[in-house]
Amino acid sequence: MRKVEKGKVKRKVRKIVVVGSIARDWIKTPFARVSGGVGGSSIYFSLAASLFSPVGIVGVIGRDFPEKFLKKLSRRGIDTSGIKREKKGETFQWEGEYSWDLNIAKTIDTRLNVFAEFSPRIPAEFLSSEFLFLANIDPVLQMKVLKEVKNAAPKCFVAGDTMNFWIESKKRHLSHLIGKLDAMLINEAEIRQFTGMNNLIKAAGKIISMGAKIVVVKRGEYGVSCFSGNRIFSLPAFPLASPVDPTGAGDSFAGAFMGYIASCGSVSWKELKKAVAWGTVVSSFTVEGIGVRRLVSVGKNEINSRYRKFVRMVHFEKI
Amino acid sequence: MRKVEKGKVKRKVRKIVVVGSIARDWIKTPFARVSGGVGGSSIYFSLAASLFSPVGIVGVIGRDFPEKFLKKLSRRGIDTSGIKREKKGETFQWEGEYSWDLNIAKTIDTRLNVFAEFSPRIPAEFLSSEFLFLANIDPVLQMKVLKEVKNAAPKCFVAGDTMNFWIESKKRHLSHLIGKLDAMLINEAEIRQFTGMNNLIKAAGKIISMGAKIVVVKRGEYGVSCFSGNRIFSLPAFPLASPVDPTGAGDSFAGAFMGYIASCGSVSWKELKKAVAWGTVVSSFTVEGIGVRRLVSVGKNEINSRYRKFVRMVHFEKI
Repeated sequence: MRKVEKGKVKRKVRKIVVVGSIARDWIKTPFARVSGGVGGSSIYFSLAASLFSPVGIVGVIGRDFPEKFLKKLSRRGIDTSGIKREKKGETFQWEGEYSWDLNIAKTIDTRLNVFAEFSPRIPAEFLSSEFLFLANIDPVLQMKVLKEVKNAAPKCFVAGDTMNFWIESKKRHLSHLIGKLDAMLINEAEIRQFTGMNNLIKAAGKIISMGAKIVVVKRGEYGVSCFSGNRIFSLPAFPLASPVDPTGAGDSFAGAFMGYIASCGSVSWKELKKAVAWGTVVSSFTVEGIGVRRLVSVGKNEINSRYRKFVRMVHFEKI
Repeated sequence: MRKVEKGKVKRKVRKIVVVGSIARDWIKTPFARVSGGVGGSSIYFSLAASLFSPVGIVGVIGRDFPEKFLKKLSRRGIDTSGIKREKKGETFQWEGEYSWDLNIAKTIDTRLNVFAEFSPRIPAEFLSSEFLFLANIDPVLQMKVLKEVKNAAPKCFVAGDTMNFWIESKKRHLSHLIGKLDAMLINEAEIRQFTGMNNLIKAAGKIISMGAKIVVVKRGEYGVSCFSGNRIFSLPAFPLASPVDPTGAGDSFAGAFMGYIASCGSVSWKELKKAVAWGTVVSSFTVEGIGVRRLVSVGKNEINSRYRKFVRMVHFEKI
């Protein structure tokens, strides 16, 4: 593993593995639209994470997925060797629409295509990774990957996401998975749905009592709350004058969150708080463009400058 | 005026005048209920503000309003000499209900009673006040009070609140008032309704372009955003495991906000940010009890301790 200088501390650069969807998206918002653009949870995740740490993607694409985009990922330090191309089918397709408030996506159409038969195969050289992100896929597959990686790297830090569909259809598997996670990232409506609890502190307490060590509740334009043990950390979203498209905001939050943690020496509460702030900052760029457009172009200088602005925006003096 | 020691700086204690409703409330939430308890915007406001600065209330009550509660206000440093008792009528009554999410009050019944003929009369000794809060009443009356006070004290810092009813019925008067305010406090749904703009940065910019120097957007359990010039400050709400009743949260936010500002030497951006944090902290106590129950009992030690906790809850390290 290569070493990098960061401040005065030499830090190991740790690779993150992400398992999730790779898609082509048709998105329409009141401000922009895209037809067949690159998307999917692991794409947003790895673009964001690669701002902090090297990433390896495990996923599947069809014959239609642009080779050029895979090259773009490689140039960002994203290892695409775990992406399998199925030449006989098409990539997973999602079509969605947002109205003026941009809070809720209305799914118009979903075509699983090659993703329907997706069974994640982790390349051997990914198995020693110390960080694993299980993006929103079937919890049965999430568990399979978790076991495989933990078997090879027992100390691997594992975080996962989910969605309403799995809460409804595979709650028992999901509960079992949560018991094995270091961090559960979940959106506000979904943690309420999963726990049946309206109050976030109580809902997060429930997830923690099931075994997850950290719970991060994503609240869209209202920010994020992070829970661990009895501790709570809360941030508003970074306010945007011209949000364009929230697609992928949650996944790029997760990417920056995990990317920052992987770049640190340890997962302390202090570093977790910074990880949440980085997630907030990076995902705010995602929302500024349609699809991945803004996220692929954002650089280290821009995110650093927005992080500093964000500090000024939420910090106030002690008594 | 008396002087107090605060840190090393001697600060003048400035009196705040608040003009608003005084009520008896019938409130039902899934967690508690109260019948005919004391309420109203200027009551919540002054209870909160009196934790920081002396307050004088201008309002009207009927024969039913408990004398004991007026004495309680006096003991908190709240001057009740501007409260007129109309012996021929009953106090303004409000009956409301909340469901599980506690975000939206459903009004069951409103009886204006003596409040219907309310025409604020500012006692002569209140006229030199340097801080005035125009709680949510008819903007025509708000303007009348503003003119009267500004006439006597041209440098008076004036803040105001409003509600959907006035936005619908007296938009022109409200617009005129906004042009004269130092600070406009308004909730999220209402600033969207008033400006027709969904985006908060744009909506706040509109209010600022109309003349208000500071805009504070109250977002309930999602926190608060404060705008002035091109600057933005945002905070999440203080998370509560057992919220009971949000009635008066906005008014007690305003009370602590104004109370803190009045206790300061100047209204700088730095102090404004602290004022927003104090508003957040104090209003979180209000929500912990039915009606004014928790707010009347909260003391300086408790709010200081929660303020410190809140700092830890939202602050994160710089890059």
